[in-house]
Amino acid sequence: MFERQDGALAVGGVPLDRLAARVGGTPFFAYDRRLVTERVAEVRKALPADISLKYAVKANPMPALLAHMSALVDGFDVASAREMRHALDTTVPPHRMSFAGPGKTDAELSAAVASGVTVELESARELARIRRAGEELGIRPRVALRVNPPFAAHGSGMRMGGGPQQFGVDAERVPELLRDMGDLDFQGFHVFAGSQNLRADRVCETQRLTVELLLDLAESAPGPVRYLNLGGGFGIPYFGRDRPLDLARVGENLETLLAERLRPRLPQARVHIELGRYLVGEAGVYVTRVVDRKESRGTTYLVVDGGMHHQLAASGNLGQFIRRNYPVTTARPDDPAVGTATVVGCLCTPLDLLGDAVELPHADVGDLIVVYQAGAYGLTASPTAFLGHPAPAEVLV
Amino acid sequence: MFERQDGALAVGGVPLDRLAARVGGTPFFAYDRRLVTERVAEVRKALPADISLKYAVKANPMPALLAHMSALVDGFDVASAREMRHALDTTVPPHRMSFAGPGKTDAELSAAVASGVTVELESARELARIRRAGEELGIRPRVALRVNPPFAAHGSGMRMGGGPQQFGVDAERVPELLRDMGDLDFQGFHVFAGSQNLRADRVCETQRLTVELLLDLAESAPGPVRYLNLGGGFGIPYFGRDRPLDLARVGENLETLLAERLRPRLPQARVHIELGRYLVGEAGVYVTRVVDRKESRGTTYLVVDGGMHHQLAASGNLGQFIRRNYPVTTARPDDPAVGTATVVGCLCTPLDLLGDAVELPHADVGDLIVVYQAGAYGLTASPTAFLGHPAPAEVLV
Repeated sequence: MFERQDGALAVGGVPLDRLAARVGGTPFFAYDRRLVTERVAEVRKALPADISLKYAVKANPMPALLAHMSALVDGFDVASAREMRHALDTTVPPHRMSFAGPGKTDAELSAAVASGVTVELESARELARIRRAGEELGIRPRVALRVNPPFAAHGSGMRMGGGPQQFGVDAERVPELLRDMGDLDFQGFHVFAGSQNLRADRVCETQRLTVELLLDLAESAPGPVRYLNLGGGFGIPYFGRDRPLDLARVGENLETLLAERLRPRLPQARVHIELGRYLVGEAGVYVTRVVDRKESRGTTYLVVDGGMHHQLAASGNLGQFIRRNYPVTTARPDDPAVGTATVVGCLCTPLDLLGDAVELPHADVGDLIVVYQAGAYGLTASPTAFLGHPAPAEVLV
Repeated sequence: MFERQDGALAVGGVPLDRLAARVGGTPFFAYDRRLVTERVAEVRKALPADISLKYAVKANPMPALLAHMSALVDGFDVASAREMRHALDTTVPPHRMSFAGPGKTDAELSAAVASGVTVELESARELARIRRAGEELGIRPRVALRVNPPFAAHGSGMRMGGGPQQFGVDAERVPELLRDMGDLDFQGFHVFAGSQNLRADRVCETQRLTVELLLDLAESAPGPVRYLNLGGGFGIPYFGRDRPLDLARVGENLETLLAERLRPRLPQARVHIELGRYLVGEAGVYVTRVVDRKESRGTTYLVVDGGMHHQLAASGNLGQFIRRNYPVTTARPDDPAVGTATVVGCLCTPLDLLGDAVELPHADVGDLIVVYQAGAYGLTASPTAFLGHPAPAEVLV
């Protein structure tokens, strides 16, 4: 949880008002170094000691955050050449990085082979293309196979698997593909069945199904399986009724799967859990300043200098069927609520809504408004060029 | 409609394959100069001759497009300081520009006053702030009042007005505010009741209500009303069953309103129609190249090198309740369809879907895939930094 100093919300020990002055203006994203460190420690404590914990860079690719994370996790997963470049700028060695994504270009494949990153192959044609890249470079590509499982992760905010999809190779076709990759440096498998899951029972069941699938597929492997990426998909609470994931239960389940199934059958394999949002999402806030306060037909509006162009998810993603508020507050979150206000951004569209009828402490023109849960999929998942407003700053404190 | 050359789709007379080579790669947005010119001419022909036609820069702020548009329309509407800067870089004089938006900062207000742009005031506090900006600069601010009407535009993709909202001053409070602005250079009023409307009857009804409201409010004006911005909200067809707006009918209705109501009662007032999407939306395509073609459990996937990070609306805006396909085709749209394919982007998320089970001519790795209706709210309304892929180019041909 974010620290308080004399009732003021502080990020990295700096009260928000002072932080805004240090940044030189609003809006901005602020990430709390300590909260990230603590979250990684919690995960480490809950998961078996021999699990490799990877950070999915896509959740928040800020270079300073990657530098911080590089001392905490065992590896990085990247989704593009740019993410890979930023990851390679840290002290994490390339062989602890994986590169996944259904549309890797030839240039991206070459860069990954040259870097020595493990490429998670998504199709037979990608296999052919990386072989060519390896031949041209005179480097044996380090690869894993991404598998489209025959099941989906129930309870996920976003399900992947269980039917046709663009990700990975259908499980039933994997043995055939494995016969064709003896010349590559085959590491193992990756399965990712869904993201933003808050239900431990569903996460555990997905991990159990994934392990059984991988034990099956490992029998067709061209060599010893050293890499088993079980994905992640651990969710964080965004809305009022969301309950945090029971991490202890997930850890116990993983220990059972390792002890009973994986260590006996695949002793050379390192098991990876890949988390993005879960490690950083709750460590960030999006901070804006009130530009106008107005009444319209019984509703109080606080118009802020940021909005959906920076933090799209909090606005409801351009017209979601059921829009719910992210937690929104002021720079003094523990002050008593004095009324209800609707917090809107500065854009010329009714979609630019950050908080609909939220209970807030006193807030007027010049005051700061804070949106929590802004550490993941905030800035980079938002249309920052929309209407030509300035891009927000990002700070890690 | 886009030209064909030997069966190949051409933008600005250049076949897409050649255009891709000229751009130096994919993905890119291409806008057809001739189609924009023709669309403006159609609108001019349908609307009364003494209507002022303004372009809403937010729909597509590409500087080259603004330069082209500056010779076609009577003025620009801008939504931020950056849009204003780009608009001022054209030959359109500042007094033919308006600046609207609920969260204008002090810096933006000062820049607008210094530029001589008409600022559409959204609240009593903004009025006080612009007065201060004018005093500091020694310039009398040129202003109009944005009104929150007591009605909404039915049939709009996005309704504004009819209840509380962050935009403008509630109509019932306008007379009170008008008493307090005699020292400013008051021009008139702006009402905008909804966007993306395909039904002429609804557009006409909204314009009729708007005119009656403005005639009422004009009685309280501190001087002669010279500026009446009726908004726009003309829609374009995006999906299979959408029918184009009956522009002739909208024009006839406007002529009646001008002849019977506005010219007799407010002879000094120039009436403005402000269009963004309608002028440019159908003149643009988003062009990507197939990186992979794969089968998964009975579905054919075409994975392209672009995606939702460039053209978010076509993907369904991050999980809309009912997702529909934008028109999607190949570089040879008139070739016979040879089957059904699902076109997905290169991002690591199932939301990155450009066309779900679309009938397409033959398309394989290396071929171009085209998304129509990409001239408005494409690039700038998309999360271009998502997953760190390169930004697409934009060309006006």
